[in-house]
Amino acid sequence: MTLPPNDLGEYLRRQIPLAAAMDVSVEAADAAGVRLRAPLPPNVNHHGTVFGGSISALALLTAWTALHLRLDAEAIPSELVIQRNSVEYLRPVADVLEAFCAAPPAPDWERFVSTLRRRGRARLVVRAELLSAGELVATFQGSFVATRSEGESLVAGG
Amino acid sequence: MTLPPNDLGEYLRRQIPLAAAMDVSVEAADAAGVRLRAPLPPNVNHHGTVFGGSISALALLTAWTALHLRLDAEAIPSELVIQRNSVEYLRPVADVLEAFCAAPPAPDWERFVSTLRRRGRARLVVRAELLSAGELVATFQGSFVATRSEGESLVAGG
Repeated sequence: MTLPPNDLGEYLRRQIPLAAAMDVSVEAADAAGVRLRAPLPPNVNHHGTVFGGSISALALLTAWTALHLRLDAEAIPSELVIQRNSVEYLRPVADVLEAFCAAPPAPDWERFVSTLRRRGRARLVVRAELLSAGELVATFQGSFVATRSEGESLVAGG
Repeated sequence: MTLPPNDLGEYLRRQIPLAAAMDVSVEAADAAGVRLRAPLPPNVNHHGTVFGGSISALALLTAWTALHLRLDAEAIPSELVIQRNSVEYLRPVADVLEAFCAAPPAPDWERFVSTLRRRGRARLVVRAELLSAGELVATFQGSFVATRSEGESLVAGG
């Protein structure tokens, strides 16, 4: 599944005002995963580096987007909510921040989709990496719960 | 230590643009702890509830502010950074979001301050509660590291 990054970015910024405030853009959204980025100025803190809250929010948005697009590609309309997450902040970020969430390993994904189809509800743990200037700056792990719904899909209904 | 909430809110919104974008305000900042709030509209997601990234960011900002004000009251100029955090999202939030970070237990605080004075660096784990419409909606735990500096204090230098 590949989406035009501009359309997806526009969708995220329109649906989630904080994504617009953070000036989030989409670098890539394809079978390998989702890569979002956010520039320093709207995300800066009093040290001149990226605010931890922006790091955490960008990672969460990236992981959520990666899962949502994959669920959409499976044609399973669902609501996807974050249940818990943890972030490790490895170093200060003084440049553009990127978050990458790789497609989950196939066995995890298949179990998740199969449980969701069978029970109408399933949980998946997703990891994301935060990068800046070629370095790993933070790591994110989030546990998401999907619940089947009759809602419109992200791609078609966005 | 008690600060005029308006001054503190203005300081946070000026230093951290994301706090302004989230329309964060200060409900209280006194010996009991720090309470910040953020309204729904700038923090909404596509479900009409508060975006998880806003919940996480408000909690982090509240915990950071509570620690920073206490360090300031101890007259220990220091840089305070987040090292890791975890958030549990208990229920969707469809109203104003509040985060409260209580003053740390006295023994923990005394050990933290004593280590910081002695070694120039100390770590403290801080908890915050997220509330909305009288209910607990999420919990936050963050591990912060303080490093002594010759910087201006938050209160005097803001």
